[in-house]
Amino acid sequence: MSEDLADFWAVVPAGGAGTRLWPLSRAGRPKFLLDLTGSGRTLIQATVERVAPLAGARVVVVTGAAHEAAVREQLPALGPLGLLAEPSPRDSMAAIAWAAAVIEAQSPQAVIGSFAADHVIPDQPAFETAVREAVDVARQGHLVTIGIEPTHPATGFGYIQMGTRLPGVATARRVRQFVEKPDASRAAAYLSTGEFRWNAGMFVVRASVLLDLLATWHPDLAAGAREIAAAPESVDTRWPTLEKIAIDHAVAEPAADAGRVAVVPGDFTWDDIGDFTSLGALIDPEPERQPVILGDRDLVTSVDATGLVVPRPGRQIALVGVEDLVVVDTEDAVLVTTRARAQDVKAVVDALRAAGRADLV
Amino acid sequence: MSEDLADFWAVVPAGGAGTRLWPLSRAGRPKFLLDLTGSGRTLIQATVERVAPLAGARVVVVTGAAHEAAVREQLPALGPLGLLAEPSPRDSMAAIAWAAAVIEAQSPQAVIGSFAADHVIPDQPAFETAVREAVDVARQGHLVTIGIEPTHPATGFGYIQMGTRLPGVATARRVRQFVEKPDASRAAAYLSTGEFRWNAGMFVVRASVLLDLLATWHPDLAAGAREIAAAPESVDTRWPTLEKIAIDHAVAEPAADAGRVAVVPGDFTWDDIGDFTSLGALIDPEPERQPVILGDRDLVTSVDATGLVVPRPGRQIALVGVEDLVVVDTEDAVLVTTRARAQDVKAVVDALRAAGRADLV
Repeated sequence: MSEDLADFWAVVPAGGAGTRLWPLSRAGRPKFLLDLTGSGRTLIQATVERVAPLAGARVVVVTGAAHEAAVREQLPALGPLGLLAEPSPRDSMAAIAWAAAVIEAQSPQAVIGSFAADHVIPDQPAFETAVREAVDVARQGHLVTIGIEPTHPATGFGYIQMGTRLPGVATARRVRQFVEKPDASRAAAYLSTGEFRWNAGMFVVRASVLLDLLATWHPDLAAGAREIAAAPESVDTRWPTLEKIAIDHAVAEPAADAGRVAVVPGDFTWDDIGDFTSLGALIDPEPERQPVILGDRDLVTSVDATGLVVPRPGRQIALVGVEDLVVVDTEDAVLVTTRARAQDVKAVVDALRAAGRADLV
Repeated sequence: MSEDLADFWAVVPAGGAGTRLWPLSRAGRPKFLLDLTGSGRTLIQATVERVAPLAGARVVVVTGAAHEAAVREQLPALGPLGLLAEPSPRDSMAAIAWAAAVIEAQSPQAVIGSFAADHVIPDQPAFETAVREAVDVARQGHLVTIGIEPTHPATGFGYIQMGTRLPGVATARRVRQFVEKPDASRAAAYLSTGEFRWNAGMFVVRASVLLDLLATWHPDLAAGAREIAAAPESVDTRWPTLEKIAIDHAVAEPAADAGRVAVVPGDFTWDDIGDFTSLGALIDPEPERQPVILGDRDLVTSVDATGLVVPRPGRQIALVGVEDLVVVDTEDAVLVTTRARAQDVKAVVDALRAAGRADLV
């Protein structure tokens, strides 16, 4: 833990259902509560471990009230102020603003870094290097994002266009603009310029700067967050009045237009495990004519088959002559799809909900 | 039940593991004990029902000792003589010869008809018509087989080449030869001649004629069967000495060469449910962009998927964007394969056995 980062706090928004990872993830057991990589730790545990060398115990998790008990169980070291339970989902800006206001009240000069609870970053040293530089830049009053170097022309992420270098720091640049998820040809064009980075939603900024920027464009949201921080008992009445908006639209995009945003190019791979295809690639990117197995290898019998298999204890899964198939077994549901169609698993959740099977989603 | 068939006995060999239908069929729960068609009756129950209008209670089931209790439970009306329990598997000739000898001892002029316990014949009247003619021809001393009109150039069945018409009967012909499972081009050539029928292993013959023919080529096997029928207590010592050979090789082929075999062309469809592809076609030959479901439709959520799904109560199966896939769910195992590879399911059983998982096969 670093003395020089004594002003740095980590904010961990823990939301999102992860419906494309059904039946592993469920409404009551979202992605961040699962050990999806077979590491022995859940995604939120790994996230808190990742920020610990930088923020120590200065961690604030923001999650839905429904998940408060599960988060406390997985993170028993969180202090009473370390967990903010949202009475209802109000999107990422309200969650992060609430945490920022709580931290600002305790430590007016604090820099916060927001890191989603369900992302995977294998390279710890490179992550720490990028965050340290981001904190330096944030101390100068910028809203700083960490931009991930694209490994392929992904259409599932937003992009950050980098501008000129910032003086006096190692790698940071100004952000010219944030751009929405592109189509495939536009994504390829972005990559060819070398100017674009993936937007992984990692923001590093002084708590007060964030709230002041927010006050410029969404004054009631900033005021509401500060009111709740000052009077926690007001959360039940004030929270539902807060605007539902993502931090990107509320602050990052307008601040970029105002020349207030910087980007630190992160020199590490990153994954948000958007679907089973990314999960498979994360566990074993190049299996040789064998399925990737998340779990006990002995539970899978494979004859001339490839893809991703998630078995569960007590049941054998046998594959014969299938290509790039995804098979996920759970106690009450089995999913069978292909890598190519992994994005459409959401349709199953919709269909089950329409069929009145809320117990399964 | 027909007075004119008072001399007719049905023999039902109930053997075979059905490994290509794993995980539904297991060594301890073979195909014939299962309701594979969703009819509410198991295959052996349907077989005994099918022969009842012809043979009444004159039914002898021959099965492995391991399945005796299950068969008695499924067929409570079987008399004490109606079930012969083989101490060990000795192939089809020993099984049918034993039943023939038991029947011959009770009724020396009896005609027997042998019908496997795990075949499906939906057209009952056409089946009865064919068997009646076969019994007539058998009374004249022929070994009679019922030949199934091929619906496609199958490579999984043996074929019967028909010869000249037999005088004085409706449709029966002499058998020129039995031919082994052909390759695809030979099968197509067979079909184009119009002279070939599938060999479904249905033999109708006087019990004494069968045993006498057998005595010509396999004298010890014929003698052994008759000895066991005369002294049932000798089965445990005599049975293991019997030659292991299929009825086709032991009697049908040499008898055909000797001009002793006739064929009645059966005017009905027939299926031996050799694998999940035939099972799917049997349940619903032409599903429209939907998977065929053997079981409760509500247990399957399908998004743009085709194939065959066998769900089980208490578990949802979800398919997304898969073509011609076979998914079979059981308590301790799930199989995922394709229609095209359904024949290779046996390889899973072999692999599990090699891995010491006899509990699963």
